[in-house]
Amino acid sequence: MSVDINELALPDGQIVSDPEEISKLSSDKFTEAIEETSQPLAVIQAKSVEDVQAAVKFANQNQIPVTARGAGTSIVNGSAAEKGGFVIDLTQLNKILEINIPNQYAVVQAGVLNSDLDDEVRKQGYFFSPDPGSKRISSVGGNIATNAGGMSSLKYGTTKQSVVGLQVVLADGRLVELGGKTFKNNAPYDLTDLFVGSEGTLGIITAATVKLLPVPFGNPVTGLATFNDMKQLSVGVQNISGSGLYPSMMEALNKTSIEALDNLEKSDLGKGGAESLLIFQLDVAPAGAVDALKKILAKSGALQVNVTDDPDYAKKIIKIRQDYYQAEAAYGRLIVEDVAVPLSKLPELADFVENLKFTSKVTAFLGGHAGDGNFHPNFAVSKEYAETPADVNEAINKIFKYVQSIGGTISAEHGIGDLKYQWVRPQLGADVVELQRQVKKAFDPNNILNPGRKV
Amino acid sequence: MSVDINELALPDGQIVSDPEEISKLSSDKFTEAIEETSQPLAVIQAKSVEDVQAAVKFANQNQIPVTARGAGTSIVNGSAAEKGGFVIDLTQLNKILEINIPNQYAVVQAGVLNSDLDDEVRKQGYFFSPDPGSKRISSVGGNIATNAGGMSSLKYGTTKQSVVGLQVVLADGRLVELGGKTFKNNAPYDLTDLFVGSEGTLGIITAATVKLLPVPFGNPVTGLATFNDMKQLSVGVQNISGSGLYPSMMEALNKTSIEALDNLEKSDLGKGGAESLLIFQLDVAPAGAVDALKKILAKSGALQVNVTDDPDYAKKIIKIRQDYYQAEAAYGRLIVEDVAVPLSKLPELADFVENLKFTSKVTAFLGGHAGDGNFHPNFAVSKEYAETPADVNEAINKIFKYVQSIGGTISAEHGIGDLKYQWVRPQLGADVVELQRQVKKAFDPNNILNPGRKV
Ligand SMILES: Cc1cc2nc3c(=O)[nH]c(=O)nc-3n(C[C@H](O)[C@H](O)[C@H](O)COP(=O)(O)OP(=O)(O)OC[C@H]3O[C@@H](n4cnc5c(N)ncnc54)[C@H](O)[C@@H]3O)c2cc1C
Ligand SMILES: Cc1cc2nc3c(=O)[nH]c(=O)nc-3n(C[C@H](O)[C@H](O)[C@H](O)COP(=O)(O)OP(=O)(O)OC[C@H]3O[C@@H](n4cnc5c(N)ncnc54)[C@H](O)[C@@H]3O)c2cc1C
Repeated sequence: MSVDINELALPDGQIVSDPEEISKLSSDKFTEAIEETSQPLAVIQAKSVEDVQAAVKFANQNQIPVTARGAGTSIVNGSAAEKGGFVIDLTQLNKILEINIPNQYAVVQAGVLNSDLDDEVRKQGYFFSPDPGSKRISSVGGNIATNAGGMSSLKYGTTKQSVVGLQVVLADGRLVELGGKTFKNNAPYDLTDLFVGSEGTLGIITAATVKLLPVPFGNPVTGLATFNDMKQLSVGVQNISGSGLYPSMMEALNKTSIEALDNLEKSDLGKGGAESLLIFQLDVAPAGAVDALKKILAKSGALQVNVTDDPDYAKKIIKIRQDYYQAEAAYGRLIVEDVAVPLSKLPELADFVENLKFTSKVTAFLGGHAGDGNFHPNFAVSKEYAETPADVNEAINKIFKYVQSIGGTISAEHGIGDLKYQWVRPQLGADVVELQRQVKKAFDPNNILNPGRKV
Repeated sequence: MSVDINELALPDGQIVSDPEEISKLSSDKFTEAIEETSQPLAVIQAKSVEDVQAAVKFANQNQIPVTARGAGTSIVNGSAAEKGGFVIDLTQLNKILEINIPNQYAVVQAGVLNSDLDDEVRKQGYFFSPDPGSKRISSVGGNIATNAGGMSSLKYGTTKQSVVGLQVVLADGRLVELGGKTFKNNAPYDLTDLFVGSEGTLGIITAATVKLLPVPFGNPVTGLATFNDMKQLSVGVQNISGSGLYPSMMEALNKTSIEALDNLEKSDLGKGGAESLLIFQLDVAPAGAVDALKKILAKSGALQVNVTDDPDYAKKIIKIRQDYYQAEAAYGRLIVEDVAVPLSKLPELADFVENLKFTSKVTAFLGGHAGDGNFHPNFAVSKEYAETPADVNEAINKIFKYVQSIGGTISAEHGIGDLKYQWVRPQLGADVVELQRQVKKAFDPNNILNPGRKV
């Protein structure tokens, strides 16, 4: 590209153009590097909204690709600058601008870490509900750009449900405010919600107004149950759901996951031939919930059952779920996948994953959010391989195809990034892809924003 | 228009072109007729999706405006065919196509009445959460097209939160499926959500996959409290919210509303100088909720307080809220407005409404959903006026302007329709309006869908 970057004047920020520094500042932390068509020209370390505006405006005028970068924790190569150009690093836009308890919202800059906001508002009896596993290392802007989910999405929805308004730099550098400060707002179209999950392709989010929720009243009820298999666990999930007890978490783990946990914890979760495990919590527990849950689980054919409102015992149960990634990672380098299926299809999905055959040394796990149908088929690949073995990539492709064939989606919460866009067209169909492109064009006519993200 | 409607061949439906019949089938039921630029050419009574496709395709080829019409209960003149052309009546697309309890969704045609779906799924222990006051008379398609809200939006969100997938006829007659059958789905862009609240301007919704929720476990807790004024009531609302008790309903009514209710019910809600009334319900009540609520309300300076988990007593409390419209309507023909403000601004809004001066015979009320900041300034206009007096229209305009000045929105749940679009630009700003227009263009390049709905 024959652009002179020196012509770009930033009010406050820094332009990093040394190739080695660029690599450090823009490389993907959690996915294997994929081939970039070209090396980024520069990393813009924005210190103000004006920096972002200046950089994007310059890029638009010079047809330079722009990739927004939050904390870089994407696991679909979302913040990799596939087409080179500018990487706009938003981590220094990290101020909490306002915490407004009477109005139950906070205004934060995009680079604020999720847990920094959450920790701050918990001091005042509120919480920020989006709870991805990456809560402590990912940015609110990144969570919004990917519509991140977590265990509590079951009750509180994905990040979208927490977003009330956005400050956005458009592709030509103009700054706009979308949404507002009210929790209901029917002045169509809802462009705020359209931006949530748009993965940096429609504009750069510089700040957000997000909803704060009051910490629930009373003691939570927490439980664990094991079952013969996923089919039986699914019966338990259906019965708990149908009871109207509204769990705030309901996590299912398969046979290999139980083995991994038993190995790590020296526990015996697999007792009595248990090949599936359910861990759940009700953050608001109506009177009688403990007994009702015990009855429901017994009726659903559970093997081991523990249900408690004792906080110490609860911690032990929750710790099992928290240790799960560590337990898996003991088997090798972990590749985390992310799909969703209609609720009743969990047993079929588990069968499918367990029946995959590998010649390489790899262990396949299945775990995830049984209450909303979002599961993570994960693969622990022996560290002796420098690259992911072909049969693992094949297995992932088979899963995606299978998931689409049973009415599911190849991305539930992680987004599309660079790694999944070839799956979008078969899932959405040509007509809908065309609509998506028209929408993209409406916001970014020169196609400078994450141009690698084709649909 | 020099189009020969006889060239439009519908597979199953009926084309009504007799002017008197058209008037009957397309006139607005609940708002004063506003001047239509031209009389509709025809009402298409669609009996199949193919009918809708054929009519829209024909309209697109001949540049004929198309207005989708659900049950016609809009109170912003939403389904009035301002620019003439075709009215597509969807009321005969009224089949519940699937109720899938294991997967917690239903698939319904657009014309199904909200309560017909809700009644059906309640038989199986589930409910359809969108609960507009018009539940028994409005269509699911209309609810989606307007992103309708209700009392339970506080806990369960507006209609958007219930929509999982849509079947849509595009402006050129093509049929597409948006979304799917899973509760999490990050394959951007989320066009399903973009359609919710789009008021018939992006396409015609012919069917929807909607989420079903389990009927809550246990007995609800219901309560009523009166306060000296709205400022004090607001303290109560803040304290209940902050307690983490998560009410499923929290309705505030002002001074004139209390008078109207006392008149209708021969009650004494105004006892002790009460000038504001709060009615609330917790559909999931944690142990200790009744006592906690009583304490919170006493601490918040409430005058009368009743909190109960007795179902019969609860019914009496809920009936007061249900009778509210009837109580207001006893004062004249009712004009219902709809705004939202940040939560803490309720007292100011109440003051503003109560300080409006009228020379005509009119009573102004303020009531609404205190938990999410959505209020209805309503006006009972003496029946001696054939048309709405000028000072009432002026008062409404003043309220809109005021609401915008305090960070609120001129439409919380009813939408924009024909009546509010001149308020959209001052609220959103020119840049955002331009984006809205680009989005509209992406879906409807010939501007045939509800072309009267300018932003
Ligand atoms: C250990 C671990 C656990 C995880 N657990 C979860 C989980 O439970 N649930 C889940 O959903 N995800 C999870 N993730 C994935 C990841 O953390 C999320 O996608 C997260 O939301 C990304 O945030 P980020 O700030 O790191 O964004 P980045 O990775 O920097 O960027 C992600 C995408 O968003 C865009 N983007 C970032 N910021 C902006 C902005 N301000 N404006 C416009 N576009 C922007 C980027 O261009 C990119 O396309 C996990 C990741 C790790 C490493
Ligand atoms: C007594 C009463 C109480 C009410 N209470 C509430 C309330 O509590 N909350 C609330 O939000 N509203 C309320 N409303 C307003 C109204 O009922 C809602 O807006 C409702 O969602 C409209 O549904 P409908 O089927 O009557 O749609 P219509 O009035 O027929 O249409 C409304 C709009 O949606 C479009 N539309 C309708 N169907 C489709 C479709 N299938 N595809 C594309 N576009 C379509 C129309 O073009 C129009 O723009 C109330 C109205 C009345 C009369």
